[in-house]
Amino acid sequence: MKKSFGAGTLAFPTPVWLVGSYDKDGKPNVMTIAWGGICCSTPPCMTVSLQRPRYSFDAIMERGGYTINVPSERHVKEADFAGIVSGRNVDKFAATGLTPVRAEFVDAPYVEECPMVIECKLVKTVELGVHIQFIGEVVDVKVDESCLGANGQPDMEKVRPIIFGPMARSYHGVGEFLGQAFSIGKEIKEGV
Amino acid sequence: MKKSFGAGTLAFPTPVWLVGSYDKDGKPNVMTIAWGGICCSTPPCMTVSLQRPRYSFDAIMERGGYTINVPSERHVKEADFAGIVSGRNVDKFAATGLTPVRAEFVDAPYVEECPMVIECKLVKTVELGVHIQFIGEVVDVKVDESCLGANGQPDMEKVRPIIFGPMARSYHGVGEFLGQAFSIGKEIKEGV
Repeated sequence: MKKSFGAGTLAFPTPVWLVGSYDKDGKPNVMTIAWGGICCSTPPCMTVSLQRPRYSFDAIMERGGYTINVPSERHVKEADFAGIVSGRNVDKFAATGLTPVRAEFVDAPYVEECPMVIECKLVKTVELGVHIQFIGEVVDVKVDESCLGANGQPDMEKVRPIIFGPMARSYHGVGEFLGQAFSIGKEIKEGV
Repeated sequence: MKKSFGAGTLAFPTPVWLVGSYDKDGKPNVMTIAWGGICCSTPPCMTVSLQRPRYSFDAIMERGGYTINVPSERHVKEADFAGIVSGRNVDKFAATGLTPVRAEFVDAPYVEECPMVIECKLVKTVELGVHIQFIGEVVDVKVDESCLGANGQPDMEKVRPIIFGPMARSYHGVGEFLGQAFSIGKEIKEGV
């Protein structure tokens, strides 16, 4: 039996990402978001949604760029913290001990301690309601060499991103490898 | 040291969701997507991106509604299969043995075997490039009663959604509980 939870933002899994930007004075800031995802393969684009009053909102609009940083589970407290306080009042890098690094291609800082960082150029905003969607073209992705697998590709079990569950507001790690995409389903395909 | 992977769709984690729709003849279909996410709290909205040639594209445009179904890891093969073949040629429900159920509020089928199903009314499309973003207002979310925790809320470790890693094209399960959001970061906050 399925139970109805009505109309709401309840979907598993959602990401936990840190959006990096410089404010008008050049102070680096990060905010935590879970409303986002990849949205286009070519050009490569990602979306993150922000509320207009957020301190990062004007910063991104002014600079036209931002970073999406994938924290690993060892920084789950820092990631949560960056979603609780505002960069208007707090220097989140100083408070957490995380290290801001000027991005290579956009006017924004990335988080050195995050194993995967994505530089985005703002290309479009979409008004949706309480959230405005930022669509960013990915101009570069950098990954810690220590998080690459034997094939040279970023390895989920080394990056160890955080999974967020809305409603229960729970953070989870990633679990075991289940299979290879575009491959394990072929077993069914062959049987059709 | 970070290694640059250039401009591409490389971000962890991404979801694995089945988008359900009826074609022009009323045949139920599902397609697998990983490019999507929650995008607005009020009104509650989610986004999924589809390429125009996909069989589901016209179906959703015509019916104005679709479902987002969260498969659990026990259906990882079926989820992969639904991303390999087209509903133009294959009855994916018949091939997988999954069960289509007419949604309550939109003109689309949901997948009975998926522990979490989300009914969406199409409210906007955004042209991005090879993908078109569908923005859907969530009109209902249903969750298997067997997947609720002691608090009555959907439990990540019972739903057991699938995590997709682009580039390595790997599927993963969810791992251990890491902490409570909007809570575990307060330890840092109190130290500021």
